[in-house]
Amino acid sequence: MNAFPEAPGAPGAGGSAGPGRFSINQETVRQLSLPELVKECASLGVGGVGLWRAPVRKYGVEATARLVREAGLTVTSLCRGGFLTAADPAARRAALEDNRAAVDEAAGIGTDTLVLVSGGLPEGDRDLYGARERIADALAELAPYAVGRGVRLAIEPLHPMFASDRCVVSTLGQALDLAERFPAEQVGVVVDTYHIWWDDLAPAQIDRAGQGGRIAAFQLADWCTPLPAGVLLGRGQLGDGSVDFRFWRDRVAAAGYTGWTEVEIFNEALWDRDGREALAETVERFRAHVL
Amino acid sequence: MNAFPEAPGAPGAGGSAGPGRFSINQETVRQLSLPELVKECASLGVGGVGLWRAPVRKYGVEATARLVREAGLTVTSLCRGGFLTAADPAARRAALEDNRAAVDEAAGIGTDTLVLVSGGLPEGDRDLYGARERIADALAELAPYAVGRGVRLAIEPLHPMFASDRCVVSTLGQALDLAERFPAEQVGVVVDTYHIWWDDLAPAQIDRAGQGGRIAAFQLADWCTPLPAGVLLGRGQLGDGSVDFRFWRDRVAAAGYTGWTEVEIFNEALWDRDGREALAETVERFRAHVL
Repeated sequence: MNAFPEAPGAPGAGGSAGPGRFSINQETVRQLSLPELVKECASLGVGGVGLWRAPVRKYGVEATARLVREAGLTVTSLCRGGFLTAADPAARRAALEDNRAAVDEAAGIGTDTLVLVSGGLPEGDRDLYGARERIADALAELAPYAVGRGVRLAIEPLHPMFASDRCVVSTLGQALDLAERFPAEQVGVVVDTYHIWWDDLAPAQIDRAGQGGRIAAFQLADWCTPLPAGVLLGRGQLGDGSVDFRFWRDRVAAAGYTGWTEVEIFNEALWDRDGREALAETVERFRAHVL
Repeated sequence: MNAFPEAPGAPGAGGSAGPGRFSINQETVRQLSLPELVKECASLGVGGVGLWRAPVRKYGVEATARLVREAGLTVTSLCRGGFLTAADPAARRAALEDNRAAVDEAAGIGTDTLVLVSGGLPEGDRDLYGARERIADALAELAPYAVGRGVRLAIEPLHPMFASDRCVVSTLGQALDLAERFPAEQVGVVVDTYHIWWDDLAPAQIDRAGQGGRIAAFQLADWCTPLPAGVLLGRGQLGDGSVDFRFWRDRVAAAGYTGWTEVEIFNEALWDRDGREALAETVERFRAHVL
């Protein structure tokens, strides 16, 4: 069975390039173990997976690489490195060390994209500008290391509601300001609809990213309210919220993006369901709201 | 007793202009009735209050005007008009009617500033651009009406986390794009630290707003996490979060703003306390973190 038998231009149906190619981010169906996920992807005709470090390390980097390779799956990204805003020297060294390990893991499982969640403000710190400069300093150390292993660092701007505790990089414009200090093959950006859908400047920034060859990943989740406490698990299933996915799909395509489209949803209700059923629904929603 | 006996440049201490002038937004201490609020302001040396329509209507517009006038208080703003994004003609007419009533109430209580929360996306609508254009259309009807009554409409950009359900105007840049379609004496913008603190483009937009004479109000709340469910009541007491208030105070002052600074916090923990105590703490925090 192939999830996209009739979708024109969907490489699941034949290998052509473009943002019609569906990849499932592992966290969307975290109730599935890695072997279960790989099995269900094969069964549903899903050709790409975005993986997370914790389950990969638990299963083993080499074992994961073998598992996905034998299933013919493409690993579209590894989540995540980052958290590069510490001012304390020891915390900073530890973060750099951990990011080098993340690069090694990305290379080990055969993906060229390591997603970075850059980090929030250290306790008691109110200086967003300083924190963003520390990210740039860290990238200067990490990017050459990563490119030597065939991995590009992908700065993901997170929604401004995460600016204090998770990511001081809040817009695509900010992410590009950082990325463009480095060669395009070393540092790119992630375009995630959940984080940027509200931003009237984002479409032009996608053009800018495309012109510079900086779009490292394209991710989808819908924007739904009311947000849950803590807001991290508010990402909604495609079609349940306010995001006009075709608008963003067309924009990244027009900007020259030919990579995969990863659906990444953190949502308790989705996690509480049967994993195969949740994955099948996500594939169906992708057909209905994105293709 | 005066809350600002030694604060240089704080007009509570002598009448000079500038963002040192403290005003308490009524919703910050909603547990106080209007007469209680006025009494505590007098006792604590607070010279300005921002009022809300519901309690004003409950107490009576004329009675409110008399109460604040006799206490020598300045009404720094009325919250709020807006919700101008309806596409349905009947809903749209009702919204315009309600906004004219809000203008009348603002004029009736003697404030020249009506804060607008512009409105979110109608049910099932995903077109932020269209919604923003409907706001512009509504302003074209309302602004001449308001200016005829001595009231300026003040577009408040709300944090992007409110874009779908409360306000499609998410940045100061967007607010100014709308406001600048009208004369400055008709439409201004609200600079609220809670909504813009994360935005690296906001400082330059404050300059732009100042140059155009568009800063109609300056409001403060702190950014604290984790956000509560629904996120509306996440506004934090000054000093409890990530906002660098002096940075924003200096920026609006440098942009030529000489009006009041309103502290507007929606926070259950603050509401659960004795109202006078909550107000006194807010005054104290203003001295410690803003002056």
